[in-house]
Amino acid sequence: MRYSQYLLPTLKEVPADAEVISHQLMLRAGMIRKVAAGIYNYMPLGLRSIRKMEQIIREEMNRAGAVECLMPMANPAELWQESGRWEKYGKELLRFKDRKDADFCMGPTHEEVVTDIVRNTVRSYRQLPLNLYQIQTKFRDEIRPRFGLMRGREFIMKDAYSFDLDDAGADISYQKMYQAYRNIFQRCGLRFRAVEADSGAIGGSFSHEFMVLAESGEDAIVSCDSCEYAANVEKAEVLWTEQEAVAPEQELQLVETPQQKTIQEVAAFLDLPAARLVKTLILQTSAEEVVAVLLRGDRELNTIKLANLLDVDWVLPAEEEVVRHVTGAPIGFAGPIGLDARLIADNEVRTMSGYVVGGNAVDRHYVGVCHPRDLVIDQFADLRRAEQGDPCPRCKNGRFESWRGIEVGHVFKLGTKYSETMAATVLDDQGQSRSLVMGCYGIGVGRTVAAAIEQNHDEHGLKLPLPLAPFQVLVVMLNPKDAQVRQASEDIYAQLLEAGVEVLLDDRDERPGIKFKDADLVGIPLRITVGARGLQDGTVELKIRTSGEQSALPLAEIVPALCQRIAAADET
Amino acid sequence: MRYSQYLLPTLKEVPADAEVISHQLMLRAGMIRKVAAGIYNYMPLGLRSIRKMEQIIREEMNRAGAVECLMPMANPAELWQESGRWEKYGKELLRFKDRKDADFCMGPTHEEVVTDIVRNTVRSYRQLPLNLYQIQTKFRDEIRPRFGLMRGREFIMKDAYSFDLDDAGADISYQKMYQAYRNIFQRCGLRFRAVEADSGAIGGSFSHEFMVLAESGEDAIVSCDSCEYAANVEKAEVLWTEQEAVAPEQELQLVETPQQKTIQEVAAFLDLPAARLVKTLILQTSAEEVVAVLLRGDRELNTIKLANLLDVDWVLPAEEEVVRHVTGAPIGFAGPIGLDARLIADNEVRTMSGYVVGGNAVDRHYVGVCHPRDLVIDQFADLRRAEQGDPCPRCKNGRFESWRGIEVGHVFKLGTKYSETMAATVLDDQGQSRSLVMGCYGIGVGRTVAAAIEQNHDEHGLKLPLPLAPFQVLVVMLNPKDAQVRQASEDIYAQLLEAGVEVLLDDRDERPGIKFKDADLVGIPLRITVGARGLQDGTVELKIRTSGEQSALPLAEIVPALCQRIAAADET
Repeated sequence: MRYSQYLLPTLKEVPADAEVISHQLMLRAGMIRKVAAGIYNYMPLGLRSIRKMEQIIREEMNRAGAVECLMPMANPAELWQESGRWEKYGKELLRFKDRKDADFCMGPTHEEVVTDIVRNTVRSYRQLPLNLYQIQTKFRDEIRPRFGLMRGREFIMKDAYSFDLDDAGADISYQKMYQAYRNIFQRCGLRFRAVEADSGAIGGSFSHEFMVLAESGEDAIVSCDSCEYAANVEKAEVLWTEQEAVAPEQELQLVETPQQKTIQEVAAFLDLPAARLVKTLILQTSAEEVVAVLLRGDRELNTIKLANLLDVDWVLPAEEEVVRHVTGAPIGFAGPIGLDARLIADNEVRTMSGYVVGGNAVDRHYVGVCHPRDLVIDQFADLRRAEQGDPCPRCKNGRFESWRGIEVGHVFKLGTKYSETMAATVLDDQGQSRSLVMGCYGIGVGRTVAAAIEQNHDEHGLKLPLPLAPFQVLVVMLNPKDAQVRQASEDIYAQLLEAGVEVLLDDRDERPGIKFKDADLVGIPLRITVGARGLQDGTVELKIRTSGEQSALPLAEIVPALCQRIAAADET
Repeated sequence: MRYSQYLLPTLKEVPADAEVISHQLMLRAGMIRKVAAGIYNYMPLGLRSIRKMEQIIREEMNRAGAVECLMPMANPAELWQESGRWEKYGKELLRFKDRKDADFCMGPTHEEVVTDIVRNTVRSYRQLPLNLYQIQTKFRDEIRPRFGLMRGREFIMKDAYSFDLDDAGADISYQKMYQAYRNIFQRCGLRFRAVEADSGAIGGSFSHEFMVLAESGEDAIVSCDSCEYAANVEKAEVLWTEQEAVAPEQELQLVETPQQKTIQEVAAFLDLPAARLVKTLILQTSAEEVVAVLLRGDRELNTIKLANLLDVDWVLPAEEEVVRHVTGAPIGFAGPIGLDARLIADNEVRTMSGYVVGGNAVDRHYVGVCHPRDLVIDQFADLRRAEQGDPCPRCKNGRFESWRGIEVGHVFKLGTKYSETMAATVLDDQGQSRSLVMGCYGIGVGRTVAAAIEQNHDEHGLKLPLPLAPFQVLVVMLNPKDAQVRQASEDIYAQLLEAGVEVLLDDRDERPGIKFKDADLVGIPLRITVGARGLQDGTVELKIRTSGEQSALPLAEIVPALCQRIAAADET
């Protein structure tokens, strides 16, 4: 492609309303343009990266035995009423009426439609397993669309749905998708983790999120430095091994701690590490119970673990009035001794002894606290957020590293939720009717490209890995008016095209400074600069965008050298 | 792909609500499934044909210098208000509101969005010409969606928009697209005509429709048997060469024609060919004028030619009351003699003499009519529909053949309609601001596949040409339980996959009769049957779906033979 005949409108300035770097760079590099909030044009350059991502996905899905189809964007209300989601789904489900006043929605996901396909076409266990996928444009009417393609309203997604006769089959389908996803993100050249995710309100027995690692990521995750275990901190288990309780050595004492409210303040005042304190959190649950949770002073509560333990929808900090009622003191002085609430402690508290707790009175703390001597704890459980350095609960050898990640894919065992409500059954080998066991598997296509940019950029622009870069090679023709420069550039361009290389030729009549700035911004991985000075020595310059490495190569060697690099990248 | 792991739900029965053959066959061959009126799932087999069509389009568009992008389905009302189409577009434009009550529509076409892209990114004539295209899902809320993919509501379309500095440039862009479209439909292996189309109310100086020829086509077209001229009969010119008028030989006579109303009846009654009659049509125009049109008795009026001549939006047969007023008689007896209306005659009437016309009275006709002796004709013009056998108005050598066609593509010179209303301008080489001259170019992707089926099928099923067939080769494994048959089939399958051939292996445990019926229905062009009997002689059977040709080939020769056939087809 010739730059002069292409539409690649780069921007010098950072657009005002773009908050995150991928959004800024995709706008500046002419990859996307906004049409409305959360709705974008994929400009030619951006579409190329999108299509490459799609093709990697397609190849790996096919290799895993999934079958491609395409379902419509406009979904009739009937199917969503049947599943019950017409009512339950919030305003993200954009509902509309056609000219005959029939109700439709824009498909934000396609469980209903795909379940309808399968119940109408699959009758026997012999047609299973079946995994149908599509790469399709979806619409979710986000209340606050932002971050460009990261959280758009209209977006391209790969969604797949597996159908099996039983749980064992569904688990195999799940594992295939898990492996396909690993292959996909590996082939994209991205650093990522497959993390165990909390499956939240949707239910289902297991679920992994695929996270592209990037400092700007919304999600906090931990991964083991020695095995494959990785999890969202909301889900990550904390290893606790049975240990003998430490015998009490200190006496219980109520001490004055004037104007010391936070853990840090109290610890400093008493000249103790925060780990010697135990904090008492007073919480309310969706079941209208009040519970007190004990946690080592330097730890954070994982409210999802607590909610799961209590089998409630949510837990929240108790209101001031409730705290006063339970503790007899204002917020900030809660302690477990003499407290009028169920007492649940994190496992870590089990073996603690001689610790500090709140005194249930203003400016008072107990020191030298021991259980069960001074208080009775009703229940111990894994309640804290995992942290960097925690031992791995899976291999028990490694330790947690912590990362920020951007969720780009999700694999999910759905079970029979949809097949039961929508009566999607098959006959098994005994002639018995059985509900299909489903799984669902999504990848945000544009989101992955955006996440790849979050992970791979510098202050000058994109540094996309070769498999996702819109072009593999950029040939910069310095001074197109120089006949020799023009000829050499055109020759290289023609040879690269001939070799099947994706190449952009910057044949614009622009100053070198502008060409180099645009080159860095757009960040095509391999850049060849053809200039009069180099040609005098019979050389052109090769610059590797990711490493910054630069070298002069003889004219005759440049095309083979590029082809070799590209072939080598394909193999890894 | 293995049939046993694929989703290919064929149907024995013709679905009740499918009127046209392509719709019936696409349902029966498991290519599509209905979700709602005019909204379909593309099932795996159907999607393969769609994707092949898309890829042919993409390659030819790229070759012609067009640049691919992707615009959104949800279009903000503002852009459509700016062009004026928010108000003007009928109910086919599906309008909806988002959760914040902002107005949107589902894009039925993308002139507004693409013009917005270009006015924001193109500043100088040096960035021109530019042709942006997309392959995208569109929505038009048809009042009567029907015929499957032929007239759906949600459908896949390739739309392209060219931008040039001036008319001369726009004409070159148009020609490039015209040629690209010829290449596309040729590569699809379809019989088609590029016909000059009436550009209707949209304006624009030229326009061609690409018609796939099929008996079931909605459009009547004529094409020259000797040159490339082809046109919709609504548009086709009728050649008229100046000839000397025939001198009157007969006297004017008013005769009784009791109960003879139609041209056929009167001609038979008078024992004359219909070509000796001249019919008088009384018409009303959108400008509220009443005109009378004279046409040879065996010809049809082309109302579009008449409307263009009169420069009105439409002409319609006059209501009974008007006819009575103008002719003094009921409908069916109108004649030009003594008529109170403007008289316009088709060119063909110029040299007629001694003809028959209505008598403006019940059961009366004039015979021996001559002009200008008996009546004064205000104007002569080309007003009749072209017919088979008419001489070609372009080359003047050939004669018209007539066809039925299905419109699958349209190229259209738009001019400055959108660039002027939306202020899409560039600076020319003099620094002057100029409105961009646009063209637009559409291909219905699913519609083309459906039209290909209308053109290529028999009573047993599809006969799609190789470039559009979902698979190139079908290997039918007769009796999978026979170890030798299974082994030979698997070997052929593996070798074909290795050779890059698109192959479906029918490895189902089904009776041969079912497998052959499905094979004919799905109509994969090259079919290999592997059976125990053939294997005894070391042969398998090759059947060509289109020709029906069958032959036994030695096992060792089958894969090379297939590869050769496919390669040969690729070259044509």
